[in-house]
Amino acid sequence: MQGQAQQQAYDRGITIFSPDGRLYQVEYAREAVKRGTASIGVRTPEGVVLAADKRSRSPLMEPTSVEKIHKSDDHIGIASAGHVADARQLIDFARRQSQVNRLRYGEPIGIETLTKEVTDHIQQYTQVGGARPFGVALLIGGIENGTPRLYETDPSGTPYEWKAVSIGADRGDLQGFLEENYRDDLTLDEGIGLALRAIASTNDDEIEEGGVDVATISAETEAFVELDNDEISDYIAENELEPSEEDDETDEPAE
Amino acid sequence: MQGQAQQQAYDRGITIFSPDGRLYQVEYAREAVKRGTASIGVRTPEGVVLAADKRSRSPLMEPTSVEKIHKSDDHIGIASAGHVADARQLIDFARRQSQVNRLRYGEPIGIETLTKEVTDHIQQYTQVGGARPFGVALLIGGIENGTPRLYETDPSGTPYEWKAVSIGADRGDLQGFLEENYRDDLTLDEGIGLALRAIASTNDDEIEEGGVDVATISAETEAFVELDNDEISDYIAENELEPSEEDDETDEPAE
Amino acid sequence: MQGQAQQQAYDRGITIFSPDGRLYQVEYAREAVKRGTASIGVRTPEGVVLAADKRSRSPLMEPTSVEKIHKSDDHIGIASAGHVADARQLIDFARRQSQVNRLRYGEPIGIETLTKEVTDHIQQYTQVGGARPFGVALLIGGIENGTPRLYETDPSGTPYEWKAVSIGADRGDLQGFLEENYRDDLTLDEGIGLALRAIASTNDDEIEEGGVDVATISAETEAFVELDNDEISDYIAENELEPSEEDDETDEPAE
Amino acid sequence: MQGQAQQQAYDRGITIFSPDGRLYQVEYAREAVKRGTASIGVRTPEGVVLAADKRSRSPLMEPTSVEKIHKSDDHIGIASAGHVADARQLIDFARRQSQVNRLRYGEPIGIETLTKEVTDHIQQYTQVGGARPFGVALLIGGIENGTPRLYETDPSGTPYEWKAVSIGADRGDLQGFLEENYRDDLTLDEGIGLALRAIASTNDDEIEEGGVDVATISAETEAFVELDNDEISDYIAENELEPSEEDDETDEPAE
Amino acid sequence: MQGQAQQQAYDRGITIFSPDGRLYQVEYAREAVKRGTASIGVRTPEGVVLAADKRSRSPLMEPTSVEKIHKSDDHIGIASAGHVADARQLIDFARRQSQVNRLRYGEPIGIETLTKEVTDHIQQYTQVGGARPFGVALLIGGIENGTPRLYETDPSGTPYEWKAVSIGADRGDLQGFLEENYRDDLTLDEGIGLALRAIASTNDDEIEEGGVDVATISAETEAFVELDNDEISDYIAENELEPSEEDDETDEPAE
Amino acid sequence: MQGQAQQQAYDRGITIFSPDGRLYQVEYAREAVKRGTASIGVRTPEGVVLAADKRSRSPLMEPTSVEKIHKSDDHIGIASAGHVADARQLIDFARRQSQVNRLRYGEPIGIETLTKEVTDHIQQYTQVGGARPFGVALLIGGIENGTPRLYETDPSGTPYEWKAVSIGADRGDLQGFLEENYRDDLTLDEGIGLALRAIASTNDDEIEEGGVDVATISAETEAFVELDNDEISDYIAENELEPSEEDDETDEPAE
Amino acid sequence: MQGQAQQQAYDRGITIFSPDGRLYQVEYAREAVKRGTASIGVRTPEGVVLAADKRSRSPLMEPTSVEKIHKSDDHIGIASAGHVADARQLIDFARRQSQVNRLRYGEPIGIETLTKEVTDHIQQYTQVGGARPFGVALLIGGIENGTPRLYETDPSGTPYEWKAVSIGADRGDLQGFLEENYRDDLTLDEGIGLALRAIASTNDDEIEEGGVDVATISAETEAFVELDNDEISDYIAENELEPSEEDDETDEPAE
Repeated sequence: MQGQAQQQAYDRGITIFSPDGRLYQVEYAREAVKRGTASIGVRTPEGVVLAADKRSRSPLMEPTSVEKIHKSDDHIGIASAGHVADARQLIDFARRQSQVNRLRYGEPIGIETLTKEVTDHIQQYTQVGGARPFGVALLIGGIENGTPRLYETDPSGTPYEWKAVSIGADRGDLQGFLEENYRDDLTLDEGIGLALRAIASTNDDEIEEGGVDVATISAETEAFVELDNDEISDYIAENELEPSEEDDETDEPAE
Repeated sequence: MQGQAQQQAYDRGITIFSPDGRLYQVEYAREAVKRGTASIGVRTPEGVVLAADKRSRSPLMEPTSVEKIHKSDDHIGIASAGHVADARQLIDFARRQSQVNRLRYGEPIGIETLTKEVTDHIQQYTQVGGARPFGVALLIGGIENGTPRLYETDPSGTPYEWKAVSIGADRGDLQGFLEENYRDDLTLDEGIGLALRAIASTNDDEIEEGGVDVATISAETEAFVELDNDEISDYIAENELEPSEEDDETDEPAE
Repeated sequence: MQGQAQQQAYDRGITIFSPDGRLYQVEYAREAVKRGTASIGVRTPEGVVLAADKRSRSPLMEPTSVEKIHKSDDHIGIASAGHVADARQLIDFARRQSQVNRLRYGEPIGIETLTKEVTDHIQQYTQVGGARPFGVALLIGGIENGTPRLYETDPSGTPYEWKAVSIGADRGDLQGFLEENYRDDLTLDEGIGLALRAIASTNDDEIEEGGVDVATISAETEAFVELDNDEISDYIAENELEPSEEDDETDEPAE
Repeated sequence: MQGQAQQQAYDRGITIFSPDGRLYQVEYAREAVKRGTASIGVRTPEGVVLAADKRSRSPLMEPTSVEKIHKSDDHIGIASAGHVADARQLIDFARRQSQVNRLRYGEPIGIETLTKEVTDHIQQYTQVGGARPFGVALLIGGIENGTPRLYETDPSGTPYEWKAVSIGADRGDLQGFLEENYRDDLTLDEGIGLALRAIASTNDDEIEEGGVDVATISAETEAFVELDNDEISDYIAENELEPSEEDDETDEPAE
Repeated sequence: MQGQAQQQAYDRGITIFSPDGRLYQVEYAREAVKRGTASIGVRTPEGVVLAADKRSRSPLMEPTSVEKIHKSDDHIGIASAGHVADARQLIDFARRQSQVNRLRYGEPIGIETLTKEVTDHIQQYTQVGGARPFGVALLIGGIENGTPRLYETDPSGTPYEWKAVSIGADRGDLQGFLEENYRDDLTLDEGIGLALRAIASTNDDEIEEGGVDVATISAETEAFVELDNDEISDYIAENELEPSEEDDETDEPAE
Repeated sequence: MQGQAQQQAYDRGITIFSPDGRLYQVEYAREAVKRGTASIGVRTPEGVVLAADKRSRSPLMEPTSVEKIHKSDDHIGIASAGHVADARQLIDFARRQSQVNRLRYGEPIGIETLTKEVTDHIQQYTQVGGARPFGVALLIGGIENGTPRLYETDPSGTPYEWKAVSIGADRGDLQGFLEENYRDDLTLDEGIGLALRAIASTNDDEIEEGGVDVATISAETEAFVELDNDEISDYIAENELEPSEEDDETDEPAE
Repeated sequence: MQGQAQQQAYDRGITIFSPDGRLYQVEYAREAVKRGTASIGVRTPEGVVLAADKRSRSPLMEPTSVEKIHKSDDHIGIASAGHVADARQLIDFARRQSQVNRLRYGEPIGIETLTKEVTDHIQQYTQVGGARPFGVALLIGGIENGTPRLYETDPSGTPYEWKAVSIGADRGDLQGFLEENYRDDLTLDEGIGLALRAIASTNDDEIEEGGVDVATISAETEAFVELDNDEISDYIAENELEPSEEDDETDEPAE
């Protein structure tokens, strides 16, 4: 009780440190990320895979409307987890930065550069008053000078580079799955399989139709490509992740 | 009691996350939406139907004054549910964006584009301090490159695309009704019937005169058209939704 | 007690939703409207009638100083109820909008257009921080393309169109009186009588001298005209609303 | 106790309505007015009389320094009651508006026009945050097109027109005195007498030397004139209001 | 206890009225004035005397560093009591206004004009949020058209004109002393004596060396002159105010 | 309990002193620094060594992504401890200042100059409202006119110059280790060894692979150089700090 | 308890007077000054001495990095006590003002002029909201027209001129020491000795090596000169203030 009352004193102010040096609003924004369904990134020598769990809600909702993977530039894709409307703001910001870079320097923006511009933007919302932090985490994947790169941004505005990573719900389990199954010499196809199997691992090893989005940025083409439903179905079948029978649960979207 | 007191601590600040990652003000704005009478959107291959429940209040009030369906552009209609004065702000915003698009690019704005400009505007009111969120949900329907599109915006600023959807009061029941009765091959006429039957389903399967507004955006004409009372009466009769006898209840408008 | 304490948590912040989706400050501003004496609007095919209850206060106060009916443009009148100083702000706003319309488009402003510009202005004060809502309701009546129109604005910024309507004190009773006695084919004279009888209905069916203001906007002349005391006395006599004997109560003005 | 605690919740915020639609800060500003000594205005067909009670404080204070009647323009005088420093701000505002009117239109400002510009200014301080209301009431008297006019402004920003009126301490008693003794056909001299007798009525029917300021704006000359001490003494003697013996009380000024 | 708790509710907000119409922050600023040692002004037909009690603190502090009398313009002096740093702000303001007047109109500023510009400046800090009132009172003395004038400003921003006045500590006693001993026909020398005797009256009728500052603005020369220590000693001797023996108390300065 | 409640009263406001003259938010920001893993700086006559503890987290995270040592200019390196996103802001600030100096003066910025520009920037965030302090400490090392310099910045904005210093976790122990083992005549190689041994001293005298970053700024070359993993391994081996067996703990990053 | 609770009500608001006319935040800033080690100023006919106690902290910290005496202009030095980062802001401000004066008037700034510009700057932070007061006191010493001057600024923004003064820890004892031992005819050398003996008086009459900074501004050269360690050692020896044996305590710096 004591501890609780004391905590309350510090977590209401947006930009205030607690006595033990924590920023509670940023930690609560991390909870908002956990409330969103998972997105997964896998980096292979052949390119980057982004996959997003988007379990069906209402059969009347257009599956494409639950966007969790976005093209930021020809050679960069971004997957999100958490507060959807916040994600849209950051993705718009990333797109603008990508365009500005092309206009100003006549060349595509680097993946690390873009990531850091995004995290700087996020950090401002954790230090200056008058706004709340962004309740979303992003995976930024792309090709830079022929090399696949995969970054994560969190609500504090810290950038991390990964070989394979999960954001959103069940991060603990998913990250464990990735650590066990990741190999440095995965093909892009194997990377897609790994991502799908990870997502299925939290759902009885099944993925329903339209239940995931998958995109790749190949090192060869340096192009962001979203897989269509048939391609995804092939990968699901190949990895034996088809649902057995029941398929009708309707989840509320995280907000 | 405990939990309640704790919740109070977080829901008073507009732009603050709760410890479990929720934005209470946005959730309360969703309650404001539920306080409004329902609006329904149905997408058919022949066009989009927007229908709004506007049960009579005082017999002296002009029924047309309870506007819930608005023309945003020649090819786009918007239906609202929730705080009426907030809806008017967003619809004005949508109209301005539509005009700007025509001026700047010489062509009608896309339905998805418009929806996202509206949701970006809504999101700002949930992150930056000094204002409250919008207490209203919108259905944005129209024709884009010959194809009917139907979107929903919610108070968090998230866009969703639907085949058929309900906003406002009784969303749970209405959405269930739509899921049971929607077919992908509905004609526009059948779409109007479905929308009216849905609205009637929460009112003893009856619709009083002047109790609904209906508008369509046909894929053929690409034009927003509001049905007049006679046309609506015909559809009500056709669908056997005429009220039996009593007709006099007076509801207070949601504010 | 519980409920009360909880309510207090939400009604102190100007622009904050309560858990059930209400804006308490707007609802309290509606109470400020109810504290003002009533104003009544009646729309007839021949024109619009505005009448305002202004029971005498001190015999030394100039009756004309308790302005509740104002000319907004040649063809538009506005009656108010509630916080007098707030009403003056909105009426000045309406006059400026009317003038701007004439300057910009070379024609008189439409009644609906003007009403919506006023309600948009009111809405801003309910969403953006740093100010309180307007504690006043308005009746905006006028002639548009030869047709009489009568609108109400409330503190939330919602516009309503009416055949006959009352704002301010005793709205429940007065609206009931109007619903019982309104006919669609009233002459302008009969409309004045209806308005006076409605006001008298809450005061032992009597109206003291100088106790009401009456103005009309005739469809024929399209001109706002304030009745002088003799004319009003004639209508009072005609409708048998003269006070019997005692006449001396002094009310405090609502602020 | 309950009611008191609840009231406290609403009266601390400057621009917030209470649940019953009141603005407590404005009502408290009215209390500041009551803390000031009274000022009185009397309108006669021959002109307007302004009189102010300024009972002596310290014998060392210059009586002229307790200004309560001010010239706003050649044809307009203003008397105040309440917070002295606030009064000075409003009177400066009125003088600037008077000058602007002469510069812009080449003619003296109307009394009603000036009053409404002042009350609009006052209203802003009751609606927009970041400042408190003005704790002062004014009497604005003058000649407009040959006709004497007398207005009151209160802390809410409402203008009232009066034949005779009192602001400040003892308003209830003084207004009663004026209602009993006012006649529509008073001469300007009789108006001065009425004002002095009213002030004396709350002080054993006596007025000490230097205890009142009196000014007139005559309909004939259209000029604001302050009476000198000898003239005032004559009126005091004429109305038999000389103090009998003791004369030495020292009041603290209201602030 | 009750009353105390209630008072606390109102005195924390800078610009808020209490239910009885008081501005507590202004009243507390008056307390800051009382915490400062006294300053005295005496107006005689031959000129104005300003005297300030500056009892010694540390023997190592330069007596001239405890400035309480300042030259504002050639013909104007200002004495202060209260918060020293605040006094410096207002005196700088007064000096700037004096210079502006000379530049703009080519003539020295009037004493009343200057006083009112200062009090308007003070008033702003009591009405507009974001700052506290000035915790200082001033005596502004000078010659205007050959006539000596003496004004006081208080923390509310009210100007008072005086023949003789005291600000700061012991005002009650000092003002009583002045009322008993002031004569309208004092010479400037006698005025200096009166001021010194007043200051001494609260200190066993003694003034230690360097314990007072004295300045005069003579009607003849229209020049502000600060007396040097020898001159002051002569006046002290002449008025028999030399300290008897002990001389060593060290007071803390008021801040 | 008493003391605790009292402390709470002062530590919530960002820019407020407590009664004993402390700024709690700054002290809590120091706690945020302690939550980060340690960074160490060692100054030798041959140059400056910066070393940072970055114990492995997930095997899938790119070790290079946990940046704790940054190049600020050719001749300046910066190591950080604490809130990572805050560190990035300050390092960007330092880089901009370095560039501005080169542009403006055509020469590299001095180490002390840069440090003070950074600490001035930090101080602003502790005095002016609307933001929180930076939750990070920096070590700024470089060569100025041939001489190695090593500075620390803390969250209050105070600069300190050191021969050898530790920031972040375990500062007490690490600083003790440095004081015991530092010699003024260390070679750069010995400085690297000292830094590594210090870091290992809090971890059973072991450093896992990829567990530290090391950079040097040599007095001879005046160039910031980051050691690659092989070089670091050599130093680890040379100092006998290889881990014995277990190597797999995964720490959560400090935020 | 009562009094304590009441005090808390007033000391949290930055710019608010307490009921007894005190500004608690300013008083708490004075406590921040007392938390800093002492600085001492001594004015002699031959010049001004500034001395600062900077007892050693860590043997690895550069003694020069604990700057407490700064050159503001060729002829002006400033010593500080209290919050180090705040001191740096004020000293930068003083340097800028000195430069501006040289540029604008082509001559060195006066000591009093500079002091008052600094105190005006400090005062603003005590009256206007949005920032806290400066938690530092300064000694400003220099030569003006050949005459040594020594000023103190405190957190309220009040300037004091002194012959000899101490700021920071132990002010009471140190000021007593100075009062007992100061003579008006000290040579500059004797002034240095007095300052050192004062500092030693609170530390068993010993000063460790590097434990003080000393600077002089000689009336002859009009130049600020910092003594080097050898010179200081000579003065320490001359005044028999060498430490006997133990020398190793490590104090935490005041922040």
